[in-house]
Parts: sequence; C-alpha cells; structure tokens
Amino acid sequence: MYDIDDLSIVDGRIQLGFLTRDLTFMSRVLTAHMRSINADFYREHDVMSGSVALLSLIGLNPGISQNDLAAAVVLKKSAVTKILTEMEQRGDVIREKPKFDRRYNALRLSPQGERRWREVRERMIAQREDLLAPLPQRDREKLFKLLGRLVEHYADRPAEDEPRPRA
Amino acid sequence: MYDIDDLSIVDGRIQLGFLTRDLTFMSRVLTAHMRSINADFYREHDVMSGSVALLSLIGLNPGISQNDLAAAVVLKKSAVTKILTEMEQRGDVIREKPKFDRRYNALRLSPQGERRWREVRERMIAQREDLLAPLPQRDREKLFKLLGRLVEHYADRPAEDEPRPRA
Repeated sequence: MYDIDDLSIVDGRIQLGFLTRDLTFMSRVLTAHMRSINADFYREHDVMSGSVALLSLIGLNPGISQNDLAAAVVLKKSAVTKILTEMEQRGDVIREKPKFDRRYNALRLSPQGERRWREVRERMIAQREDLLAPLPQRDREKLFKLLGRLVEHYADRPAEDEPRPRA
Repeated sequence: MYDIDDLSIVDGRIQLGFLTRDLTFMSRVLTAHMRSINADFYREHDVMSGSVALLSLIGLNPGISQNDLAAAVVLKKSAVTKILTEMEQRGDVIREKPKFDRRYNALRLSPQGERRWREVRERMIAQREDLLAPLPQRDREKLFKLLGRLVEHYADRPAEDEPRPRA
C-alpha cells in the first residue's frame, strides 16, 4: 500500500517526513525536476525556460496585455518585460498599442513565433506520456483537476507587486 | 461541473487551453504562487527561500551528505554549496567529516538552526489550512499522494549534473 508518510527518495536515503504534505516544498521540487528534465530541450531549441510559458500564453490569447501575462505566470512585470523584449528582438513577438486603447501593449506572435510555438507545443504534448508515466490515466486527470483548482484560486489573490495583507 | 478544459484565470481573461494538462507549466505557476504567498514570511524571518527546504531536509535527515541534499532538492551541487556556506556562516548548519568516512561532508543543524527550523516548521504547518483552502480534505490527501508518486519517480532519474540520455 502506498503511504506518503513513509516517502523516501534518493535511493531511500532521504526521508521527506512532513514535507510530503507541504505544497511549497512539493511544488518546488516538482518544478526543479521539470526544469532538469527539460534542460536539453531548451538548449536544443535555444529558448529560455521562462519564454516557453509566455510563448504559449500569447499563442493561446492573442492581444493579451503585459499585465495580464505577468499575472498569469506570477512574475513581476519587470521580469516579464525583460523576457518579452528579448522575444521581440528575436522576432517571435509583436507588441502594439491597440487602436481602441493606446494605454497598453497588446501582444501577439509573429508568423515566426507561431512556428516556434507549434514546435514547442508538439514537443510538450509528445513529452507528456513520459513525464506522467508513473500515473495511470485516471490519476492524471485527477492531478490536473486539483492543480487547476489551486491555480485558479491563487490567481484571484493580489499579485506580488501589490501590497499583500499579512497572514 | 468543474472542467479543466475551460480553465481561465486572471478574472477569466486568460485561457490556459492545453497548458492545464502540462505538468511543466502547472508546477511552475504553482511554485510561483507559493513564492509570492511566502514572500512576506521569508522577509520577516530573514531566510532565503531556498534555505527553508535545506533547513527542513537537514533537520529531518541529520548527517545527510551535500550530494544527497542536492539530489533531494534537484539543484546543482554548486548552488547547494553556496546556500549551505551562508547557512553555516549564520551559525545554523554544521558541516563535518564523519570519522568513518572523511571523503564527504555530513550536515546537521546547530542548536540555533534547530530553533529556526522549529519556527519555520510551525509556520509552514499553520499556513497549510490557508494554502489548501480550495480543496476538501480528501482531495488534499489525493493531491499529495499523486505529487509524492511523481517526485519519487523523478528522483530516481539521473541528476542534472550528469549526462542525461536524449529523449
């Protein structure tokens, strides 16, 4: 019987104890594994790991504003601006002020950015089988439902740039 | 009925589309939310966000080696060494070569490190209720079981420093 209270990793040498129920720790370690597993891919395709998420979000939401984009990936606006500037210089992203509202930058992918996004997306989808191998289909659905509910919930909280009330 | 295919965030303005089933994206965003939510706490307690995981792992596994610690948090050895050096200088961590094997550094917490760890752990556990508020108890158990199974699986893969066979 699988019991997370006894979870030990690194050939059984490391006990995780109460950390197995700590969302900060578990999501951090999971993200680090993803980064490590994806490292070759990012190098091959010469993409910064941060830009893959932005590429996808702009591809899925053409006309998105920089502020909304920063809120979606939970990064500071300054960090997002930096990545976007590089993506624009490479010719993947186009920033333009919409005619109906000149106060913000609307973002969309260039034809080259669309091509890059298609490649990246195909690779992401092809890789899923491998990443999710330890889980049967039903559990994968469950996992993404639970993660989706959390992400949806946290996205309604105030962003990092804004003052956050003390807990 | 909750359907992750329609998941939209940031006041419903951003569609996540296929990203809702992408573990790299979802874990990245979840981790970013955790970092943002925890930012005040890290500032108050003057801890680097990376050091909290190390403090906990050393507290739970006294005598752990630097290599095992790096494998557990999925960071490069150089990055872990840097954080450990700072933790040692602050007087939280003690590095020593075990008598039976002088080739590696065994790590443990100093009494001050133990106190800091106790504080951090209490705060982490107290915060769970808030972090997991969107999920009923049963779903929390399920989520941590699924995350645990993934983390256990990935921890058996070769580490980032070692050459990884191409997918």
